[in-house]
Amino acid sequence: MKCAGTIDVRDVDESCINIDPIQVGGRLTADAMKAIIAYGDGYSVCDQCRKPFRLDYIKTPPVDIFHRDLASFVNMDIARVVPGARRGFQAVADALITKGDPVLITALSHYTEVLAIEGRGGVIREIPKTEQNIIIADAAALKIEEVIKEFGRPPILLFLDHFDYQYGNCHDVREISKVAHQYDIPVLYNGAYTVGIMGVDGKALGADFVVGSGHKSMAAPAPSGMLATTAEWAERVFRTTAAKTDVTGRTFGVKEIGMMGCTLMGVTLVGMMASFPHVRERVKRWEQELANGQKVVDALLSVEGTIVRSEHPRKHTLTRVDTSGSFDRVAQTHKKRGFFFTSALKEKGIAGIIPGATKVWKFNTYGMTDSQAEYLASAFRDIARKNGLTVAD
Amino acid sequence: MKCAGTIDVRDVDESCINIDPIQVGGRLTADAMKAIIAYGDGYSVCDQCRKPFRLDYIKTPPVDIFHRDLASFVNMDIARVVPGARRGFQAVADALITKGDPVLITALSHYTEVLAIEGRGGVIREIPKTEQNIIIADAAALKIEEVIKEFGRPPILLFLDHFDYQYGNCHDVREISKVAHQYDIPVLYNGAYTVGIMGVDGKALGADFVVGSGHKSMAAPAPSGMLATTAEWAERVFRTTAAKTDVTGRTFGVKEIGMMGCTLMGVTLVGMMASFPHVRERVKRWEQELANGQKVVDALLSVEGTIVRSEHPRKHTLTRVDTSGSFDRVAQTHKKRGFFFTSALKEKGIAGIIPGATKVWKFNTYGMTDSQAEYLASAFRDIARKNGLTVAD
Repeated sequence: MKCAGTIDVRDVDESCINIDPIQVGGRLTADAMKAIIAYGDGYSVCDQCRKPFRLDYIKTPPVDIFHRDLASFVNMDIARVVPGARRGFQAVADALITKGDPVLITALSHYTEVLAIEGRGGVIREIPKTEQNIIIADAAALKIEEVIKEFGRPPILLFLDHFDYQYGNCHDVREISKVAHQYDIPVLYNGAYTVGIMGVDGKALGADFVVGSGHKSMAAPAPSGMLATTAEWAERVFRTTAAKTDVTGRTFGVKEIGMMGCTLMGVTLVGMMASFPHVRERVKRWEQELANGQKVVDALLSVEGTIVRSEHPRKHTLTRVDTSGSFDRVAQTHKKRGFFFTSALKEKGIAGIIPGATKVWKFNTYGMTDSQAEYLASAFRDIARKNGLTVAD
Repeated sequence: MKCAGTIDVRDVDESCINIDPIQVGGRLTADAMKAIIAYGDGYSVCDQCRKPFRLDYIKTPPVDIFHRDLASFVNMDIARVVPGARRGFQAVADALITKGDPVLITALSHYTEVLAIEGRGGVIREIPKTEQNIIIADAAALKIEEVIKEFGRPPILLFLDHFDYQYGNCHDVREISKVAHQYDIPVLYNGAYTVGIMGVDGKALGADFVVGSGHKSMAAPAPSGMLATTAEWAERVFRTTAAKTDVTGRTFGVKEIGMMGCTLMGVTLVGMMASFPHVRERVKRWEQELANGQKVVDALLSVEGTIVRSEHPRKHTLTRVDTSGSFDRVAQTHKKRGFFFTSALKEKGIAGIIPGATKVWKFNTYGMTDSQAEYLASAFRDIARKNGLTVAD
């Protein structure tokens, strides 16, 4: 069925249990759905934009209050909405990095951090991970020393993913930040997989910048996200234009260079705002989310030959599993080859795994009810059993 | 009535004739409305993202075809979607401008062009306007020569708004581009007020970059837009990452630095796509749009003391009027002061003018039916007459 022209209706979250690793935190709440219908049109939040004409001053809808709420949500001083977490990285990179500056990421950093640094001509250096795929403070300290030897100065900025996109492993932001601050290196906390799904206290974590993703973890349409910072850094990252043109002598008020003026003028912002009260509540249920995730992980581990590549027990609902020794063995001889697995999942109403993947793959149980988690767990065990794999009781 | 939490339902375009200068081209089509309901969730267009994992390769929904259609729509070689026209300016500025480079804008350029240049440390120089508020090729040529004298080299880039946001006046892109190209200066065509409402032939206009706004003129949600360029410039503006990390040796495939990877992952893109067949048709009706706008302008001119500050006859539906000598005279003694005017318009079901504005203000008649235009024209005359102003027959 088409919803418009050549575009198929999308009903994956209405008709299936979706375990797509990047989608589950971005599903809209019912309130967001209602809000985007009312605010679908371009520039829809600008009806009552008055002097000084900037998004975060708009009172109706209460965009101004929302900005303050966002900052306090992650315990930082000031926040802005941005078109995706990546645009938050870009804004910080633009403000801090000059060509040739060394910048630290980690061995598990997201590619958008790399692009933000590359765009400014920064030189990327990685903090290695442990054999268990964890970034630890000792490794950060060593790497900083190496950078000082190589460049004669410490890195200008450190990008740190609290939970990484590859394993959903937890990295010790607090300790790493402490080390970074001993060298006066500001820390950008990438909360794409945390802000909006679990509690984040930016100051307690030692973050100088907190970046979150609306469409990844705040139940908001894409592209949306947030960038929050401290009073100390705000002036630099949210600096306003100083331009005065040569002929007309025009100046441009309070427009912020790093934000390119206003950022989210309609549906994306209103979606974030409408979901926000629910998001603020749902972060308190993180332990229950983890318990559901663990149920599914345990079911997968009960299938002989399956290895969980993420740290265990799980501290996040995003998990990387290796079924080379289980489901992929089935695929070798199954008439559907690797597609047997996602096909069997589909028959059980489960979506979100790349078709054909039977070796190393990721899934995310975020947002499930308890009974959905139980259903998913038993589905994995069923599929294993039906295909002749040994499943522990 | 609230649509969600503290957010009022927005029904300005359902309940009124909206003449807001920036909103009328961004109202969704019915198809876009349907599509955003299906694709509200974050990352909703990514269900079938397969190697090489980039937005413009996605086949379902047909994002790949849409990208090619966009390029051909403005007669350029290659196009990308971006989170607003301003992010198109930013991508071009990032690729071309180095600190200290002179960059040309015009006396009527939009502030987002200024921010894009300022963000890269470019030095802004303005092409003056004529007394009639038009940018002409002779002025561009003179300014280029001045820049060469000042900097010892020509400007690195020229930003040119086909129709400006202040007057909606038409500027001679073709002739100015010719002049710029004689100095090998690339031209960025700002089509925020053209692409999606009138036909735009980028190559015929001599544009090296064509930027359009989804939420301003393509009936799409915010933030959305497009950046198109020629085969010659594509490699530079859409350059892919060359980063290889030092520890893990990771590389990042075909991700484009200037785009920060993927740009519009859901509702914004799908809204653009669903409206596009209608947008492609509606640009053919531009003459009728102009005729409607002219009707309204003529009605305003029939009110004694009213001056149209935009060029006349009108070549755009966005018009700047000066009613200091008419409606503002009424405001001096009216009990509602300046608010009498927008209040009277509101009673007649007309919205989109800043409350209290009676001196210089802008309106945009784009997208009206003939009878709405006639109604609006007679509403202005009625309000004038009722408040004792002389109205010519």
